[in-house]
Amino acid sequence: MKTLKIPQATVLRLSLYSRFLEQVAEKGVVTVSSVEIADGVGVNPAQVRKDLAYFGEFGTRGVGYNVKELSQHIRKILGLHQVWPVVLIGAGKLGSALALYEGFQKRSFRIVGVFDNDPEKIGKKLGHLEILPLDRLAEVVEEEGSQIGIIAVPADAAQQVAERLVGVGIKAILNFSPCVLNVGEEVIVQNVDFSVNLEALTFNLQMRRTVQFR
Amino acid sequence: MKTLKIPQATVLRLSLYSRFLEQVAEKGVVTVSSVEIADGVGVNPAQVRKDLAYFGEFGTRGVGYNVKELSQHIRKILGLHQVWPVVLIGAGKLGSALALYEGFQKRSFRIVGVFDNDPEKIGKKLGHLEILPLDRLAEVVEEEGSQIGIIAVPADAAQQVAERLVGVGIKAILNFSPCVLNVGEEVIVQNVDFSVNLEALTFNLQMRRTVQFR
Repeated sequence: MKTLKIPQATVLRLSLYSRFLEQVAEKGVVTVSSVEIADGVGVNPAQVRKDLAYFGEFGTRGVGYNVKELSQHIRKILGLHQVWPVVLIGAGKLGSALALYEGFQKRSFRIVGVFDNDPEKIGKKLGHLEILPLDRLAEVVEEEGSQIGIIAVPADAAQQVAERLVGVGIKAILNFSPCVLNVGEEVIVQNVDFSVNLEALTFNLQMRRTVQFR
Repeated sequence: MKTLKIPQATVLRLSLYSRFLEQVAEKGVVTVSSVEIADGVGVNPAQVRKDLAYFGEFGTRGVGYNVKELSQHIRKILGLHQVWPVVLIGAGKLGSALALYEGFQKRSFRIVGVFDNDPEKIGKKLGHLEILPLDRLAEVVEEEGSQIGIIAVPADAAQQVAERLVGVGIKAILNFSPCVLNVGEEVIVQNVDFSVNLEALTFNLQMRRTVQFR
């Protein structure tokens, strides 16, 4: 995987700042301070300033940040000033949930094709999308100009699907299978593991108990 | 939400270190250096040492960390030396996928009850679990001693479900609905938003393009 100078955690926080700014913009708020952003997102204000400083000078000392401007800036940094066509492989329970997930549209992502190799699934509909056989993948990726693929297949099929995605020109993969993918250095991979989120909870429950017992 | 002194990003990285250590342990590796952990996880070695330093002294200078010891230490820090019984609300596509998700068992989580209010779903099976009506929630939570609940219901039902979970004594919620939950300070909430993972990809695609065009 490519090494980048901007920490992954900063990118993650930018996504959170972006969501917060859009929430306050909806309420008609014009300016916010780094303290308000920090409070809204649950980090410290110095972190907010440091994260934003990677991308240039924003905000005015003593006045704060213009909500709309900063919001647009961050969306642009995250690449969300354009719509990203995404292909999804796997139309099982998780794949179906992802195909119908409303959160994607809100954030500039559009699922343009759902693929499976199960003849019982091919031809069925998920929302407005028809489940297609995998041999239609190359065609859809080219037609739609997709650079992003989501893998939602069982672990034993994931590596093969990843290679197929890379083979048709996909540059970035969101991997929901519990499997480390082996792809070229030039392909960006993000692994989603739901247990990681649960571990953040148990860590906190654990900490709390330890503190109580002291 | 409760403020903690350990950064959330550190906790997330602990989960990744833990997975890496278990992978190398399976291969029979006895010691690893912070550089090897860092390479395996994609962070820098100083970060690894700093993260681990929050929790005491591990490893020996010039020798590295004992894989099994460190692995057990981190599991304990994350609270994974015990099994956590988890209740899951929502047996739609996403809820069903989560109920059957194999990754949870590997990491000390056990789904002990799946609940829905849809009469068509109640009584059906997801793996070995029968989908139960929501009025059985209190009983299951008490019997199993669950402290963790997962919300996988539509946005318009999420707040009500969250209140119900808190009402029966749940202390930590993993929220898959695209909805900010309003619960007491003493309840820990983690929101899962799949778009955030996609944004990490588009950020990198975007960065790469910017660099190419310079």
